[in-house]
Amino acid sequence: MALIVQKYGGTSVANVERIKHVAERVAKFKMLGHQVVVVLSAMSGETNRLIALAREVQSEPDPRELDVLVSTGEQVTIALLAMALKDLGLKARSYTGSQVRILTDNAFTKARILQIDEAALRADLDAGRVVVVAGFQGMDAAGNITTLGRGGSDTTGVALAAALHADECQIYTDVDGVYTTDPRIVPQARRLETITFEEMLEMASLGSKVLQIRSVEFAGKYKVKLRVLSSFQDEGEGTLITFEEEKHMEEAIISGIAFNRDEAKITVQGVPDTPGVAFQILGPVADANIDVDMIIQNTGANNTTDFTFTVHRNDYARTIALLGKLQPQIGAREIMGDEHIAKVSIIGVGMRSHVGIASTMFRTLAQENINIRMISTSEIKISVVIDEKYLELAVRVLHDAFELEKAPAV
Amino acid sequence: MALIVQKYGGTSVANVERIKHVAERVAKFKMLGHQVVVVLSAMSGETNRLIALAREVQSEPDPRELDVLVSTGEQVTIALLAMALKDLGLKARSYTGSQVRILTDNAFTKARILQIDEAALRADLDAGRVVVVAGFQGMDAAGNITTLGRGGSDTTGVALAAALHADECQIYTDVDGVYTTDPRIVPQARRLETITFEEMLEMASLGSKVLQIRSVEFAGKYKVKLRVLSSFQDEGEGTLITFEEEKHMEEAIISGIAFNRDEAKITVQGVPDTPGVAFQILGPVADANIDVDMIIQNTGANNTTDFTFTVHRNDYARTIALLGKLQPQIGAREIMGDEHIAKVSIIGVGMRSHVGIASTMFRTLAQENINIRMISTSEIKISVVIDEKYLELAVRVLHDAFELEKAPAV
Repeated sequence: MALIVQKYGGTSVANVERIKHVAERVAKFKMLGHQVVVVLSAMSGETNRLIALAREVQSEPDPRELDVLVSTGEQVTIALLAMALKDLGLKARSYTGSQVRILTDNAFTKARILQIDEAALRADLDAGRVVVVAGFQGMDAAGNITTLGRGGSDTTGVALAAALHADECQIYTDVDGVYTTDPRIVPQARRLETITFEEMLEMASLGSKVLQIRSVEFAGKYKVKLRVLSSFQDEGEGTLITFEEEKHMEEAIISGIAFNRDEAKITVQGVPDTPGVAFQILGPVADANIDVDMIIQNTGANNTTDFTFTVHRNDYARTIALLGKLQPQIGAREIMGDEHIAKVSIIGVGMRSHVGIASTMFRTLAQENINIRMISTSEIKISVVIDEKYLELAVRVLHDAFELEKAPAV
Repeated sequence: MALIVQKYGGTSVANVERIKHVAERVAKFKMLGHQVVVVLSAMSGETNRLIALAREVQSEPDPRELDVLVSTGEQVTIALLAMALKDLGLKARSYTGSQVRILTDNAFTKARILQIDEAALRADLDAGRVVVVAGFQGMDAAGNITTLGRGGSDTTGVALAAALHADECQIYTDVDGVYTTDPRIVPQARRLETITFEEMLEMASLGSKVLQIRSVEFAGKYKVKLRVLSSFQDEGEGTLITFEEEKHMEEAIISGIAFNRDEAKITVQGVPDTPGVAFQILGPVADANIDVDMIIQNTGANNTTDFTFTVHRNDYARTIALLGKLQPQIGAREIMGDEHIAKVSIIGVGMRSHVGIASTMFRTLAQENINIRMISTSEIKISVVIDEKYLELAVRVLHDAFELEKAPAV
């Protein structure tokens, strides 16, 4: 007998038929003798509908009241799933975030979980009940309803799994696992049976939408075994996210290729090469609440330097305008930008102990005449910025070069 | 400065525009220096939509989970109204029933309020906030969400007014007060400026839909001043529901004429006139959970008796079938029934001290050749059962005979 937390996203509970399907899946696990805690999102589209309603009333909805409003979305699905489970003859009970209680700070619309009182849930589990918990929501110390922000239901699932010392936290979604890369670009892309937390964090931060990054961090911190599965397939093992020490030594050097097209590149050319120049440029950018991703500084001619960084594409125009104003003060020769870039990253804990990974990557891209505009590396990742038009080609040739379509020898 | 509880029903918060209108009305009261607590229903239609959704999942929805589900309806409206109030520059805060907390028993879908913890609300009011409370809902001692059953938002309003010792509880609805009778039948029907609680109770129990009967009982018990008003008119005093001792001596003998068409009449003829016969007939009816309203027993010929009673029209066929099976055992000659009846009642605390009210009623109906099938009386009410086809005529001639279109002399 194991204790399993299962989290189902909005598309998995989008209508009555799918809710009944979730109930049947839960019933199967109960039949096998497991204890099951289910965490649900709102029906897909419902949260957006409620936010739109709020905006009709108040152009910038009050955050406290917005949380009161949108938290009704999960309250609807937990009640319906509990009914569906009872209809199958199972014992079940639903809980809102406040009822559990999932204590958070009071940062409305983006609260963080502080503590979970799991006593009532454990009593229910011991009494043979399926426990159905509203994801995405909690309450602060003063009893106000809070929400965790987008993707927060994943975090609720992981936090409950941690609090209950669950054997596994299963995240059901509309894909059947984590792939070596996006199968829409590389049809040979292969589902990974396992991936380490560090690799998953890099994948998530690079735009792989399978798991919300905060929930992965949370799972890593509390050593919760996470598994990503499809709620639309009845079979399949999904992808298990493991801790590095558990990873087989024989496993692949590179686990996957992630990419994103959300960034734009900005170069400040010909800045006097004096101490503090990076701060002079990035200080005002940070003050304007613009997030910066990659940063590169090269020495140029005549004691000047070229400074390049990337921002989210939505912030591109604002950043260019901001730096335009600062140009005289910085003493830059020119400010240039490029919105048509893409970032491609190869990720794998194995690269730590293997030389030559970077050179294979660069050679592969060079053979296709793909120019690398920026490079950044971490212990388990190498990212390059290239022209957006080469993105698909780059992903395909790298997938091929690292033979990701082949399962690693065990 | 007064403390006012205002309750708005589903049609008053049916959409964003109407919610903003409610906010403007609340703002006016705040501007006059009053403290305001607002109690809201769900948007009209929303509760029914949620119940239909539940029935798709489970043909007889689990009561606990049904309450979790339908209580989201008011949670949506309180959040939206709090936003609308803030948009007008007012301070406001919403509360679910659990947050207040409104403690109820655990009779899901028809819970009763046991206690209200008004401390937080009072602190908000003292801080100048408008308090917006979800009607219709509460929580039991174990923290489960409960609902009070249909019309329960009125009860929430009255209970909050009692707990906070409010100066007045205003029930906003789609009519502008309590009328001498239904204006669709008698165009001269007049809005009453005041009505006593006892009269209102009789009106409510006789099918006048203005106020939910439990809320009137509650107001009577806790001496809460109730006022019924239209949320669609900006002027108007509505109808104040007073305690009898406050009623002017000069006021009208008859306050109003109520009626309903929901009942059917059943006669058990030629039963041996022995002790216990009423129980022999009504015992099995009660056991079948069929409510009986009027009961009459007449002595017939040959030591037999005729026994007549009324039930809800929905229970008519079931009752006839039940008695058909019992007929041999009871020894009744015949069981007859009539679904096409109507009950008309004249109501007024004044009739206690005035003779001749009944005779005026019976003479008026006789003059129109309206046959009276049954009569029942209480201290402040006389009810007659007549053929349904005469209903409108009877109401009109009685309204005329008692001169209800004229305001009483003060």
